[in-house]
Amino acid sequence: MTEPSSKPAIALGSDHAGFELKELLKAELLPQGYTVLDLGAFGPDSVDYPDFGHAVAQAIEEGRAPMGLIVCGTGIGISIAANRNPAVRAALCHNGLEARLAREHNDANVLALGARIIGTEAAKDALSEFLNTEFGGGRHEGRVAKLGQS
Amino acid sequence: MTEPSSKPAIALGSDHAGFELKELLKAELLPQGYTVLDLGAFGPDSVDYPDFGHAVAQAIEEGRAPMGLIVCGTGIGISIAANRNPAVRAALCHNGLEARLAREHNDANVLALGARIIGTEAAKDALSEFLNTEFGGGRHEGRVAKLGQS
Repeated sequence: MTEPSSKPAIALGSDHAGFELKELLKAELLPQGYTVLDLGAFGPDSVDYPDFGHAVAQAIEEGRAPMGLIVCGTGIGISIAANRNPAVRAALCHNGLEARLAREHNDANVLALGARIIGTEAAKDALSEFLNTEFGGGRHEGRVAKLGQS
Repeated sequence: MTEPSSKPAIALGSDHAGFELKELLKAELLPQGYTVLDLGAFGPDSVDYPDFGHAVAQAIEEGRAPMGLIVCGTGIGISIAANRNPAVRAALCHNGLEARLAREHNDANVLALGARIIGTEAAKDALSEFLNTEFGGGRHEGRVAKLGQS
């Protein structure tokens, strides 16, 4: 896991409220060797969060990135949008514990954060746990399979 | 809004981890005059959270209840399941602030809670804010409309 080339690509999406946190987390990911597929927003001008949730979901569905990170003001709206796509399991998390459980239990492939709700250190910790926790399998597998049904 | 008959029906769903909190919140809703449509789980035996997220979503889609409350261990899995249905806007909330914002900004029609994450008073406050906050409309309307697209 120390080879940069072994790190998955991460699709990034945010609205204007999430733009700054997306940029901060992108700056965390790049030095660790992750490839990022930044789908916007590309500035603080007002945009619609569903457009970016859908864009990240489409990138996951099409295999352009196996994992995603989405950010809006609360994380609620953009995670609803992403979860419309049965290829996505977007977990709205507030801390590292939730991000770890989302990977272990739900095999979450998209991390959703609320930029106006959590602080930057909690966001970094959630991202780290999300990227470094494996799916637990076992009793969780059948449940996750059911999430693939729309 | 003081007439019991003016209160909306609330569709309830949980897995085993969320069963106890669902029951506690049901006991809050009934004396306030809400009708509840309890779709299970009906006990603490192990079940699969997607089944109950889908059941509440179907109740919303079919108009059997205009609003829903779903609970699992973290709230993550059951909210992913519910949000597969374009009729649902399920908001995973940890407190009253998030629940209020989910109503104001996202016109959320389902409240999702994590029984192993938040305490009972935070859950009650989230439910109260969820039920007593109106959608803000305005600039949020176009965004919410986009959430209806699968």
